[in-house]
This record gives sequence, structure tokens and C-alpha cells, in this order.
Amino acid sequence: MTVLGIDTSLRSTGFGVLAVEGSRLRAVEMGTIKNAQKVSLSGCLRNIHSTVASLIEKHRPDVLAIESVIYGKNAGTMLVLGEARGAVLVAAADAGVPVYEYEPRRMKMAVCGNGMAEKVQIQRMIKTLLSLPELPQNDAADALGLAITHVHTNSVLNVKEPI
Amino acid sequence: MTVLGIDTSLRSTGFGVLAVEGSRLRAVEMGTIKNAQKVSLSGCLRNIHSTVASLIEKHRPDVLAIESVIYGKNAGTMLVLGEARGAVLVAAADAGVPVYEYEPRRMKMAVCGNGMAEKVQIQRMIKTLLSLPELPQNDAADALGLAITHVHTNSVLNVKEPI
Repeated sequence: MTVLGIDTSLRSTGFGVLAVEGSRLRAVEMGTIKNAQKVSLSGCLRNIHSTVASLIEKHRPDVLAIESVIYGKNAGTMLVLGEARGAVLVAAADAGVPVYEYEPRRMKMAVCGNGMAEKVQIQRMIKTLLSLPELPQNDAADALGLAITHVHTNSVLNVKEPI
Repeated sequence: MTVLGIDTSLRSTGFGVLAVEGSRLRAVEMGTIKNAQKVSLSGCLRNIHSTVASLIEKHRPDVLAIESVIYGKNAGTMLVLGEARGAVLVAAADAGVPVYEYEPRRMKMAVCGNGMAEKVQIQRMIKTLLSLPELPQNDAADALGLAITHVHTNSVLNVKEPI
């Protein structure tokens, strides 16, 4: 099974492609879709959409795993986050890839065994779990963490529906 | 000039294609992209994206006009509205069509001369302005209203930047 984890935001979307080979997890590719501040909203969304579509075409994931959104944020932030998610979800839907979402706390629990884990702890655990040569970037680590969460959740408790 | 107006929402996105022929405005096509309650989020976004992309391919609009979002709504509503907007904006950006946004109040002012106009007033004015044989549907009327707002604003005060 191959899982594409996506940690969505307008300016810095992390991604991580995780291959499940028996009981072994392997990071196939990871990175960050960066959009500079001067890039327009339309330009950012186009970049996110086309990069995710390319990753899907290249790696043919069985599943996308994304972060579910906590509603405490302000309305403007929610709108922009929604727009970025829309770009990701259209790429997945067009390729027929189901999308599952997981709460940040659940991802931290799955990766670190602690729902309140800090960012650097996630990076360190991802490095260890996937035997990476160096500490992954923050957004890419979160994306791989979401992919790992899907693997753990899906193989143990198949309770989630795709969105 | 051809303007594609879009009144975005997840379950019922209105659209209207407006042709500007000299001083005459003509409705070329209008309608609503409906998504039933049972359709998943991914399915809705895919439908919105593909329909808008098809409309762009068919009518080759110079511009898309959409509604800007008032931030008073709750966080969950904002997120979903953002996702639907993301689907629309990706279709426009992929085709290289610039997108301009207008406040609902500004659209009502442009169409009815009253920023507080009610829905049925907008429908009646759109019918009159565009010499339609019957009252347009609510969402389609709003979409044509946004297209008209762009024509009026752009030809008089070219102050807006595309998003």
C-alpha cells in the first residue's frame, strides 16, 4: 500500500509518500510545496493542485491522508485553509484516490504516543520510524505522520469513512 | 468581452455567462451546479471543478467574477465555502482566466441600485436587464449579477486586482 500524506496550508503544504512493505514503512518522497508571499491566491492554489496531481500520477497512492481542521481558528484563516484543501481534494478526486482525515492530536498520538507532542518531537520520531538520514522538515514530517496514522488506524480499526 | 459569474457554494453553485456586445449585455448560458446531500465532499468539489472547467473551455471567458466572502459566518461554514472556492479557483487558474471578487452588497447596488436588495428583487432586475423570458433561478441570478458588477466596475473604475 502507498499512502500520500498532505499537511495543507496556502504557503507551505507538506507532503510525504509512504510505502508499506509488509511490516516495514518507507518514505519514498517528501517535501514542501512553497508559495512565496508575492504569489496570488489563484497562483498558490494552482501550484498546490498541480503538484499534488503530479505526486499522485507519479506514485499512484491508494489513499490520501490529510489533517482535519480544528474549528477554533478565525474565519479568514478558515476560508484560506479551505481554499488550499479544495485544491488538494480536487486533485485526489480527479484521480479517484479516496481521502481520509485525521485530527492533529491523533497524528501526534500515533507517531509519538503523546497527543500534545511538539513539532520537533514529531520530526525526531519520523526520522527514527522511517530511518531517515536527517531530520525531515516540519511540514513534511507532519505529512508523513498523517500517512503513518492512516496505516495504523486503517489496519487496526477501519472506522473512518473517506471524505 | 465575456464574463463568467460564479456564486459559489458546496451544494448549489450558480453560474452565468455574460456576453458584452457594445452596450448590450446578453446572457449566453446560466444554471446551477447542484450536489445532493448524499454526495461526499470530494465528489461535490470534483463536480464543481469539472463543471466550471467545462464552462471555461466552452465559452472562453476573459474574466471570472465571484462573490467575496463576508467573515461573519461560523468557522465550519467558512471552511466548506473555502473548499468550494478552491475548486472554482483551480479551474480558473489552470485556464489562465483572471478572477475578480465583489462584495454581495456591491453586486446588489450594481444590479438593483440598493445594497440591501432582496433575492427576488435581484432575480427581477436580472430578468429585465438581460431581457430573459422568465425569472432566473436564485443562484444563477446572483452569478449573472456578479458578472454585471464586473462589467460596470471594470469599465468605469479599474481599481480591482485579480485574486
